Amino acid sequence: MKRIVLIRHGESMWNKENRFTGWTDVDLSEKGIEEALKAGALMKKEGFHFTKAYTSYLKRAVKTLNGVLDVMDLDWIPVEKSWRLNEKHYGMLQGLNKAETAEKYGDEQVLIWRRSYDVPPTPMAKDDPRSPFMDPRYKGVSEQDLPLTEALSDTVARILPYWNETIFPTLKEHDEVLVAAHGNSLRGIIKVLKNISDEGIISLNLPTAVPYVFEFDDNLQLVKDYFLGDPEEIKKLMEAVANQGKKK
Amino acid sequence: MKRIVLIRHGESMWNKENRFTGWTDVDLSEKGIEEALKAGALMKKEGFHFTKAYTSYLKRAVKTLNGVLDVMDLDWIPVEKSWRLNEKHYGMLQGLNKAETAEKYGDEQVLIWRRSYDVPPTPMAKDDPRSPFMDPRYKGVSEQDLPLTEALSDTVARILPYWNETIFPTLKEHDEVLVAAHGNSLRGIIKVLKNISDEGIISLNLPTAVPYVFEFDDNLQLVKDYFLGDPEEIKKLMEAVANQGKKK
Repeated sequence: MKRIVLIRHGESMWNKENRFTGWTDVDLSEKGIEEALKAGALMKKEGFHFTKAYTSYLKRAVKTLNGVLDVMDLDWIPVEKSWRLNEKHYGMLQGLNKAETAEKYGDEQVLIWRRSYDVPPTPMAKDDPRSPFMDPRYKGVSEQDLPLTEALSDTVARILPYWNETIFPTLKEHDEVLVAAHGNSLRGIIKVLKNISDEGIISLNLPTAVPYVFEFDDNLQLVKDYFLGDPEEIKKLMEAVANQGKKK
Repeated sequence: MKRIVLIRHGESMWNKENRFTGWTDVDLSEKGIEEALKAGALMKKEGFHFTKAYTSYLKRAVKTLNGVLDVMDLDWIPVEKSWRLNEKHYGMLQGLNKAETAEKYGDEQVLIWRRSYDVPPTPMAKDDPRSPFMDPRYKGVSEQDLPLTEALSDTVARILPYWNETIFPTLKEHDEVLVAAHGNSLRGIIKVLKNISDEGIISLNLPTAVPYVFEFDDNLQLVKDYFLGDPEEIKKLMEAVANQGKKK
C-alpha cells in the first residue's frame, strides 16, 4: 500500500482576520502552530512514516510542515518546495477583509470570486509592490507562468504539471508522501485524484490542518480516501471554512 | 562577491548535560532555539539573503536552520539535507557524560577521543539499537559509507565529497549559501577552506549558533573569513566549548 497525505496549513494571521491572503506570505497564528503539532501527533499515533514531503513557497505551509515533521521525529526527511503549490492568487482582493468585501459587493459576488471555477478577481498590476514580479523568490520562475490573479481553473492548471511530473511519480520510490499546502492548491490535487467536476470542487471546503489520506494499490490506483480525526469535529471545521465569505 | 555562512547548531539538550552526542538525534534546548533566532536576526540585520541552504539529518541542525530561515523571512528557500553533514560519530561514547568520562579515563584520554585527528573511540556494534544500520533514515546510504565510530579524519573524509561536489559548486548559481551543521562536520569544511593542518583543526573550537562568514571573489577564491557578532562574546563562547571535556 502507498499513501499520500494532503494537509492544509493551520490557521494563519489572516484566516483569523478573515482577509483574502492568496500569495501574501502571512505567518501562522499561535492556534495555527498548535493545529500543526496536533495533526503531527495524530499521524504519528496512526503509524505514518513519511520519507518525502512537498510544500509551497509560503511560510504558513512550510511552517505547518516543519511542525508536523518535528512532532513525528521526521525533521530529517527531504522536503521539496514549489511555487506551484502556492495558494490561488487572489489579484487585487489580496489583503481585503472577506466580510467587508461581502458587505460592499454582496455575498454572491464574493462567492463568485472565491469559489467560481473560472472567474478570476481583478488582476494586480505587474509593478504592484505585492506582485510576484517584484518578489525575489520568484526570480527563477518563467515570467509567463507568474500570475497576477487566478481563477480556480488557473490554480488547477499550474498545479497539474507539478502533480503529474513530480509529486505523484515519487510514489514509485516512496511509500508515504506528505503534501502541506493551501485550500485551493489542494483542491486542484483532489479534483484530479477523485475526478471531481468543476462545480463539485467548488463546494469542497478543506478544514485547516486535518490530514486527508489517499491510499493507493501497487499499481498506483486510488483505493480509498478519508480524513484523519473525529468526524464531528471535521464537519464543524469544514462548515466554518464555508461560512468565511458571508456577511457577519 | 559570493558568501558561504557556516553555523553550528544552537545548544542541544545533551550539550547542556555535557554528554557525547554524535549521531544521537537529540533536540535543541530552549536556549538553543533562542540562539538560532538571535543568529537569524543578526544575519538579517547584516543584509544576508540566502537562496540555498544545507543541513544534516539531525534535528538540532535542521531546527537551527528552520529557526534562522524563519526569522530571516526565508522559509521558502530550497534546503538540502545530507547525512554527510552529520556530527562526528562518537562510537560507544555516545550518551556518556563528558565530565564523568574524564573522571574515569582522565582528561588526556577524553581529549584524545574528542580531539585527536585520527584516533576513533571504540566502535558501536552494528546491531546496537543506536547504530545507523538500525535507523531507517540511513536506509538510502551505502553500507560501506555508514560509520560505527569516527576519528575526526573519518568525519572530514566523508564530508569532502559532499563539499566538493555539491555545496561548493552551488556558489556558481547562488551568491549566498547557508550551511547549518555540527562542531566537527564544520571543522572538516573549515579545514579545507582555510587549508588548516591536522593539528591546527583540533584546536579550533566553534561556538554554537555564531555565523561564520566566508567571502569569495568571482573566481571562487577565498578572500576573507570572519565571525558575525561581538568578538568578546564569541571568544568566551569558544573557550566554553574548549573546556567542556575537562573534569568539573
